[in-house]
Amino acid sequence: MSPVLAADIGGTNLRLAVVNEAGEVVNEQRIEAQLSRADASSPAEAEAQLMQTLISAIHPFAASHEITAIGIGFPGFFDHQNQLLRSSPNIPMLANFPLAAHLSEALNLPVAVENDALCAAIGEQRFGAGQGCDNLLHITLGTGIGGGLILNNAPYGGERGMAMEFGHLCVEPGGRTCGCGNQGCVEAYASATAISRRYQEASGEALSTKAIYQLAQQGDESAKEIIQSAGHYLGMAIAESVKLLDITTISLSGGLCGAWSLLQPAILETLNRQLIPPLQGKIDIRRSQLDDRSGILGAATIARPAREETTGQA
Amino acid sequence: MSPVLAADIGGTNLRLAVVNEAGEVVNEQRIEAQLSRADASSPAEAEAQLMQTLISAIHPFAASHEITAIGIGFPGFFDHQNQLLRSSPNIPMLANFPLAAHLSEALNLPVAVENDALCAAIGEQRFGAGQGCDNLLHITLGTGIGGGLILNNAPYGGERGMAMEFGHLCVEPGGRTCGCGNQGCVEAYASATAISRRYQEASGEALSTKAIYQLAQQGDESAKEIIQSAGHYLGMAIAESVKLLDITTISLSGGLCGAWSLLQPAILETLNRQLIPPLQGKIDIRRSQLDDRSGILGAATIARPAREETTGQA
Repeated sequence: MSPVLAADIGGTNLRLAVVNEAGEVVNEQRIEAQLSRADASSPAEAEAQLMQTLISAIHPFAASHEITAIGIGFPGFFDHQNQLLRSSPNIPMLANFPLAAHLSEALNLPVAVENDALCAAIGEQRFGAGQGCDNLLHITLGTGIGGGLILNNAPYGGERGMAMEFGHLCVEPGGRTCGCGNQGCVEAYASATAISRRYQEASGEALSTKAIYQLAQQGDESAKEIIQSAGHYLGMAIAESVKLLDITTISLSGGLCGAWSLLQPAILETLNRQLIPPLQGKIDIRRSQLDDRSGILGAATIARPAREETTGQA
Repeated sequence: MSPVLAADIGGTNLRLAVVNEAGEVVNEQRIEAQLSRADASSPAEAEAQLMQTLISAIHPFAASHEITAIGIGFPGFFDHQNQLLRSSPNIPMLANFPLAAHLSEALNLPVAVENDALCAAIGEQRFGAGQGCDNLLHITLGTGIGGGLILNNAPYGGERGMAMEFGHLCVEPGGRTCGCGNQGCVEAYASATAISRRYQEASGEALSTKAIYQLAQQGDESAKEIIQSAGHYLGMAIAESVKLLDITTISLSGGLCGAWSLLQPAILETLNRQLIPPLQGKIDIRRSQLDDRSGILGAATIARPAREETTGQA
């Protein structure tokens, strides 16, 4: 029952944690590392840069603990059937790279890799707001908006690991321009980036999202309206997801949940208006209970089956 | 290898067919029967009316053939886990009714029941445009718009049999009012009912949808615009589905496919604009090859496992 190493990889930092069977983080480290490098001139160079960044961060940490497996949440599209990292928005040159196999060889340990938002859903189902649920949609509200889906008690990644592009559901055709190039994506209204921008447009002040959430709780009208509007658009996107998937439990994590007392009612109001009548009032919108640990706990969860396959033990 | 009886049940008529293993319809009958009856004063009365309507239609047809199992596509929500017809838009009084079990007892044959649009998807995967696909979204374009989903080679019904309410995806917030009471559903733009209404608004003429499709193919501007607009809105709704599910193959059946040479390009244009870049150009929009037989062939397909469970034969 030795612990595993879990890694949650972002654009500018790596978070590493030693996690035991019970989901307790027994040691944690954050490392600044520039993952988003568009300077590679070839796929081979991009692969080498990524491998070097990850190995130099993970190796000393893994070596200093009795680790028998590694699980990684990575911001990219994983094709499970072929065990390939199809692509990553952060590293444009990367395509069809067997990341887990290469890392496993370099680190001499079993390595499992999964999309970061799907890892967060796995963590919430195992240890957080989705415990006991066979089906769960988990939404991560950060710089961008991600989604991870558990269906029939299994992570659902889609044909190419590109499922649950929740942040790019279109909630306002012809609306605000999103980072993906399209208009009206929910991410363009409810991500941290969008909320900062909208507050600055409304008030002229450039504030952190945390400050905006606090102002909203204190009754600042502009801040309140923007949080409630974010909730409205999240409700639109959740309604579309529920109409397609017929799932009951939706969990949310990320900074915007700091304004939960404004956010949840706004989500529910729009959601219940948008659903077909037999689904109205049946959907449970939950706040993550894991703070920002759902991703790292999901990465720890995916590490274990990899270790069991290797050692032949259940 | 005896044939099964397949039934496709609509609001005003029942279609019954004897179908062999190869998916060939060896005998077929259409019976006028009023299913949509809102005059029942209690759930018990609604159940009795429904049972009587179905038994009197199915029994003589089943008795005159060597039938060993029955499969039924029904316009309602089926909860598979509990084998209950949760509700049906056509029969408001009905709730939590074990339709398959009661019909099986009355007809003395194994009976399997499934949502009609999911049956159509099952038929397309087994015998039609989705052959060889482990994942398929099938869209039925009729008076309303339905959706059926195959995921990982299995029909996907959701937690309460209410998955794939494709027709009620919102493609134009605040737009046209739909039969469900909401605004901007794709059904309010691209169903046969919507197309007739929109043509009448544009031209003043009340024409059948078939006539409108013909006019569009002949170059009538109003008819063309309405078909292309329907394709645009279908493309919006398909894009949302693909962003959530990451599936490649979408098939469509129903009258509107009669204008395929106008419809498909309009769907693809919007779809590819709305998708995230790595999915653009990767989605295959197919026209059903089964004419209007996908539902009945799906009903025949679900009948077989029920028979095999009963007889213990594979």
